[in-house]
Amino acid sequence: MKKIIDFVNQMEEELTALRRDLHRHPELGFAEHRTAKKVKNYLSQLGLEVEEVATTGVVATLKVAPGPTIALRADMDALPITEATDVDYKSQNEGVMHACGHDGHTAILLATAKVLTKFKDHLAGTIKFIFQPAEEGPGGAKPLIEAGVLTDPEVDNIFGLHINNQLPTGTIGVQKSAVSAAADEINLKVIGESGHASTPQRGIDAIYTAGEIVTSLQSVISRQIDPHHTAVINLGTIEGGYRRNVIADEVQITGTVRTTDPDLREQMPHKIERVIKGITTSQGADYELDYNFGYPVLINDTPLVEEMVPKLKEVDSFNQIKYLPRPSMGAEDFAYYLREVPGVFFRLGAGGETMDYYDAHNSKFNFDESALKLGVILFITLTLERIKDF
Amino acid sequence: MKKIIDFVNQMEEELTALRRDLHRHPELGFAEHRTAKKVKNYLSQLGLEVEEVATTGVVATLKVAPGPTIALRADMDALPITEATDVDYKSQNEGVMHACGHDGHTAILLATAKVLTKFKDHLAGTIKFIFQPAEEGPGGAKPLIEAGVLTDPEVDNIFGLHINNQLPTGTIGVQKSAVSAAADEINLKVIGESGHASTPQRGIDAIYTAGEIVTSLQSVISRQIDPHHTAVINLGTIEGGYRRNVIADEVQITGTVRTTDPDLREQMPHKIERVIKGITTSQGADYELDYNFGYPVLINDTPLVEEMVPKLKEVDSFNQIKYLPRPSMGAEDFAYYLREVPGVFFRLGAGGETMDYYDAHNSKFNFDESALKLGVILFITLTLERIKDF
Amino acid sequence: MKKIIDFVNQMEEELTALRRDLHRHPELGFAEHRTAKKVKNYLSQLGLEVEEVATTGVVATLKVAPGPTIALRADMDALPITEATDVDYKSQNEGVMHACGHDGHTAILLATAKVLTKFKDHLAGTIKFIFQPAEEGPGGAKPLIEAGVLTDPEVDNIFGLHINNQLPTGTIGVQKSAVSAAADEINLKVIGESGHASTPQRGIDAIYTAGEIVTSLQSVISRQIDPHHTAVINLGTIEGGYRRNVIADEVQITGTVRTTDPDLREQMPHKIERVIKGITTSQGADYELDYNFGYPVLINDTPLVEEMVPKLKEVDSFNQIKYLPRPSMGAEDFAYYLREVPGVFFRLGAGGETMDYYDAHNSKFNFDESALKLGVILFITLTLERIKDF
Amino acid sequence: MKKIIDFVNQMEEELTALRRDLHRHPELGFAEHRTAKKVKNYLSQLGLEVEEVATTGVVATLKVAPGPTIALRADMDALPITEATDVDYKSQNEGVMHACGHDGHTAILLATAKVLTKFKDHLAGTIKFIFQPAEEGPGGAKPLIEAGVLTDPEVDNIFGLHINNQLPTGTIGVQKSAVSAAADEINLKVIGESGHASTPQRGIDAIYTAGEIVTSLQSVISRQIDPHHTAVINLGTIEGGYRRNVIADEVQITGTVRTTDPDLREQMPHKIERVIKGITTSQGADYELDYNFGYPVLINDTPLVEEMVPKLKEVDSFNQIKYLPRPSMGAEDFAYYLREVPGVFFRLGAGGETMDYYDAHNSKFNFDESALKLGVILFITLTLERIKDF
Repeated sequence: MKKIIDFVNQMEEELTALRRDLHRHPELGFAEHRTAKKVKNYLSQLGLEVEEVATTGVVATLKVAPGPTIALRADMDALPITEATDVDYKSQNEGVMHACGHDGHTAILLATAKVLTKFKDHLAGTIKFIFQPAEEGPGGAKPLIEAGVLTDPEVDNIFGLHINNQLPTGTIGVQKSAVSAAADEINLKVIGESGHASTPQRGIDAIYTAGEIVTSLQSVISRQIDPHHTAVINLGTIEGGYRRNVIADEVQITGTVRTTDPDLREQMPHKIERVIKGITTSQGADYELDYNFGYPVLINDTPLVEEMVPKLKEVDSFNQIKYLPRPSMGAEDFAYYLREVPGVFFRLGAGGETMDYYDAHNSKFNFDESALKLGVILFITLTLERIKDF
Repeated sequence: MKKIIDFVNQMEEELTALRRDLHRHPELGFAEHRTAKKVKNYLSQLGLEVEEVATTGVVATLKVAPGPTIALRADMDALPITEATDVDYKSQNEGVMHACGHDGHTAILLATAKVLTKFKDHLAGTIKFIFQPAEEGPGGAKPLIEAGVLTDPEVDNIFGLHINNQLPTGTIGVQKSAVSAAADEINLKVIGESGHASTPQRGIDAIYTAGEIVTSLQSVISRQIDPHHTAVINLGTIEGGYRRNVIADEVQITGTVRTTDPDLREQMPHKIERVIKGITTSQGADYELDYNFGYPVLINDTPLVEEMVPKLKEVDSFNQIKYLPRPSMGAEDFAYYLREVPGVFFRLGAGGETMDYYDAHNSKFNFDESALKLGVILFITLTLERIKDF
Repeated sequence: MKKIIDFVNQMEEELTALRRDLHRHPELGFAEHRTAKKVKNYLSQLGLEVEEVATTGVVATLKVAPGPTIALRADMDALPITEATDVDYKSQNEGVMHACGHDGHTAILLATAKVLTKFKDHLAGTIKFIFQPAEEGPGGAKPLIEAGVLTDPEVDNIFGLHINNQLPTGTIGVQKSAVSAAADEINLKVIGESGHASTPQRGIDAIYTAGEIVTSLQSVISRQIDPHHTAVINLGTIEGGYRRNVIADEVQITGTVRTTDPDLREQMPHKIERVIKGITTSQGADYELDYNFGYPVLINDTPLVEEMVPKLKEVDSFNQIKYLPRPSMGAEDFAYYLREVPGVFFRLGAGGETMDYYDAHNSKFNFDESALKLGVILFITLTLERIKDF
Repeated sequence: MKKIIDFVNQMEEELTALRRDLHRHPELGFAEHRTAKKVKNYLSQLGLEVEEVATTGVVATLKVAPGPTIALRADMDALPITEATDVDYKSQNEGVMHACGHDGHTAILLATAKVLTKFKDHLAGTIKFIFQPAEEGPGGAKPLIEAGVLTDPEVDNIFGLHINNQLPTGTIGVQKSAVSAAADEINLKVIGESGHASTPQRGIDAIYTAGEIVTSLQSVISRQIDPHHTAVINLGTIEGGYRRNVIADEVQITGTVRTTDPDLREQMPHKIERVIKGITTSQGADYELDYNFGYPVLINDTPLVEEMVPKLKEVDSFNQIKYLPRPSMGAEDFAYYLREVPGVFFRLGAGGETMDYYDAHNSKFNFDESALKLGVILFITLTLERIKDF
């Protein structure tokens, strides 16, 4: 293992170069053509079996010997943000930016593939390297799974990571169960009947009705769910009516519903529609509700977490393996893989020592590149540990 | 006519004596035994055909000649109020008081019967004198009608009056259409499910649900009816729950609904139940609604009002015949007669000149007794005018 | 009088021609240049003293002899509506239309001036003919009053009329007191604080707060005013927020407040702001409220109405003088004159016999032109009656 | 250590006898006279320095040698419940029952005192044995602290435990931080003005106002606090008004507020009163709010938990040391000690293997008495470990 870690440490320059090249050429979801090509070439040169899936997805397989199948996943897409940093490897693709660290994720997984290929004598089983498009939306995980990346051979465990500069470099964060929230969508049209202000009895006031809905929907959070659950209904936009002296016959409302418990998530549309239906009925109004499920709750496999954490604690490269007490309210489509096979999603601390980097999705986002090699060591450690057990 | 009015004026002493005797011996609704007996004796002595109906009701008929049938009605019941005046004819029946002037109404109608009998040569048709029990509730008009007081012969018109000391003596008040409001009742039980405060998801909060109902029901008044209509929903009592740390599974609410338009009145139960049903549904709660119709809207026959008012203006005894612009929000079961036959209900000014009498239903209520003879003249004028037309 | 009425009846052709000419050339408020010029010329040719006031207003004075001063008012402005009739005197001014009958009002008052000038030997006192701009808004009555049209000499009474095709031709409608509602404006900005959906505690939700305001404001109508009053709060538009997953920091609401009682009208801003202030405070939010008073309640002088109606009933030209029981919820700036001097505003029936004309403000609006001469007779009768009394 | 554990195991019979004697003679809070006397005698016989504090509290001190001071606490009070079990050691005090296991806690701590006294040669420092009254309310911890039980010498750490039959015997449960919720009280009077149903403008409707408060208060939970926080507002009772046709001038509401975060707890009265004040103001109503803080959030000292758990895992007597992920929403006045000194509160599994015992506060409550010795071993292990470190 020491030999491997030494080798990884020597790759630092290559890792940085890989990441910066990707950073210079960010591409939006399902348009990661240059990225996918580069990934494919790199993996092919390692001698791996490489496959293109789901438009811009790339999957490479390292078959060593009979044994378990471990998948490692990186996401490749960038965001529609104009980069505002002044690094010399700044985005050359105006209006698009790697502001969420996926350039780092891709570089880490490429390097991991290189290392594991080099040291394949220490391995057994099969390793799948999954380079996924469109994590930021509309989602690449689902089509990749549908294309069969978790089968043939059946994947036993899958691991993923996300660069996180709210943790110092050297810290690995992990949740025992829920990692990130499901983020679902409410699109509601409240339908009344128009009429003149002076004859309210001839119309049905969609604005009044919407007012009751907007307030009553919060009772789902406060009165209808376990107070230990973390859940939010945020109605973010409202619009309706034509003129001050005309009864509004339509109000449009959009909102997001965040939950961190899959069962609760399943119950939310019913609870929400029950309020909407009851209140519109109470006013003689009508409604159209379009409730869209987004990414599900991402749930780490608790036994696997508890098994891996002590192993990671033994790795000198890491300063701290930290249990994060709460799920984030953000969303991550790694959740789809974990609905199929046991696995763990880690937070790779990349905040340096000074912790003065901007948050993800900020146009000045960057991170401590010395975390890249730690990401490689994380993936390798996990892989070796899982294979050892079989 | 002058001769008749002179005769009425000479009856003042008798009228006062009649009224004071009744005042001394007030009786509650359907228990007007002494009153009914006295009325019956008085009418029998006039030689009229007298009938007892609906427990304590008394109806006398004066058949003169072929022609129209006119009914005149007085109510006889008193109120469960302890009299607080110091007149020497104060109630001798502890806890019961003629605090609404029905003693005066009865005296007026008795005297009217005497006068019309005496001057029957000037009459044609048939006159019915209806002495009704229980106007203050639960209502004597309905059972009397069911007992046939408006038939055999068919009553063509009916008139009633109410002493009113917010008008000076000498003034007759009248509304063209709606006179008094319908007063209906809401008895609502909001049904949730109990549970411990710490697990709201296991209960259904009847207090929260009731809170939404209490606020939303007002939208029926403000958003669902013609703003020209006069209507009130008053929820007067609320009670529910057991302990602060237990979710309430039941809230009881009582209220009254006042309307002055019969169509609107008919719509109110639907509008109100629609709100209650919608909101309880929206919270997964349930309800029991007991909606009781009380007395209907009392509606004068507009053409008859317009025909009679100019006639009344010609009577010197009256200072003013005044159109009252608005219905009162009180209730009066004369309304039932006017649902069957055209008629008019008048306000007999009895406030004297000083207008310093207490309001009806006050334990210090009294009125200017010189108004009694004006009540007789009113009934006689109406009767003669109606008969003249045939 | 008969002679005068005969003369008016002979003017029918001229009246129609005048009205149609005006109809062909509609002009918006304060832009009635052609109309004002035509009016001025017509009045000057009658030999009247003519004055231009408040941009496009025209006032002519007929001084006859010592005596009372009576003002008659017509409004001249048209609406921003594209005419959709196919009459041959259709609007030649694209997008502008006399869809509210002001062309008729102007023609009537011009003819009235002609008749009264011709028959001035029958008159005494002074007659003022007021041709007012911009009744449809922003309002010409106020600037004319400020310019002194009701003074020098002091106007004793003022009369106005409005063509109304919901009454048949030959019917004159009149209210005893309130004629039309005050129409005031609510412009409300609810101010919260933005934040991400996942951290509601860091923001203040302007949409939730607006929801409470929208529902609670109706309690002003249902719980805070005399149920006999006619009042409406209509919130006609609502708009706020940016994205579903962002807490809205601002919601804009516009509404209208209709009242028919001046005292109540004065109380409404306080009652409304009290709700808004209380609820925004309750959520830690803020608000900006711009409450604009529009036209006041138009209130006829009741004694004058009661004095004039019997006189009008004696005029054979009119089939019916009808008391209208309720104020309209529309607004009319004749209200300003009646705050200064006693007067009456009449509804001139112009629905013909068939009553199949479109309502005012409809692009197919028209009316029965035979009502024009009745308008002239109405104005002349009122004037002669008032002068006679002095 | 083995010797000590063997000794404890031999005490099983004595432990059971102690507990059953206490069970037979339950006493309510601050009335634990027999219990306190028994405790005092037992401790005195061990040769300990014993002190009576805060009415029925008993504190014994074992001073061994210079070193740290460790406090161990048991609560002694019973509940006002009539026992419904059929054990032969059933309560002999009608209407009072040890339905929350405090008899066990007391027995455990007495036995612990005996063992530690016997083996004091293995100890250093000072051990305080705190027998506290009135944990079920109104609270004995606070007066004991005020009486100085944590000083002279200063207590370095304190430990407590609670029998829990939702964990099997042999399992020790522990939370890393928050253990139980703060339970605070809302007592609210909404004050309006009375009046007759027909004139809402003359009253202020306390029921309507209460309806808005009841619904809006939930926005504190759903919109104003971190969704990761666990908090509940339960309004458990409501009562107001006199008659259906009278405007209610007063509504009484009681509720409980549960929080598991001390900062949030401090903010709640402000957030809650802000809603109440804003809404009453919005209706021109008034209020009286009596907000009582009950027991605070009980918060274990996280580093101490993390230090002790591995030590406990080494004790063979325990099958499992289990981290409990969530605080309970119940309340426990051990919280007061932990606001003064670092310490830990444990859950002592006593559900046997079958786990078919009734919950605490049930009249059929009982527990597996073989857990008693494990409680003694827990206290002893903690004490020895803490002393060893010094």
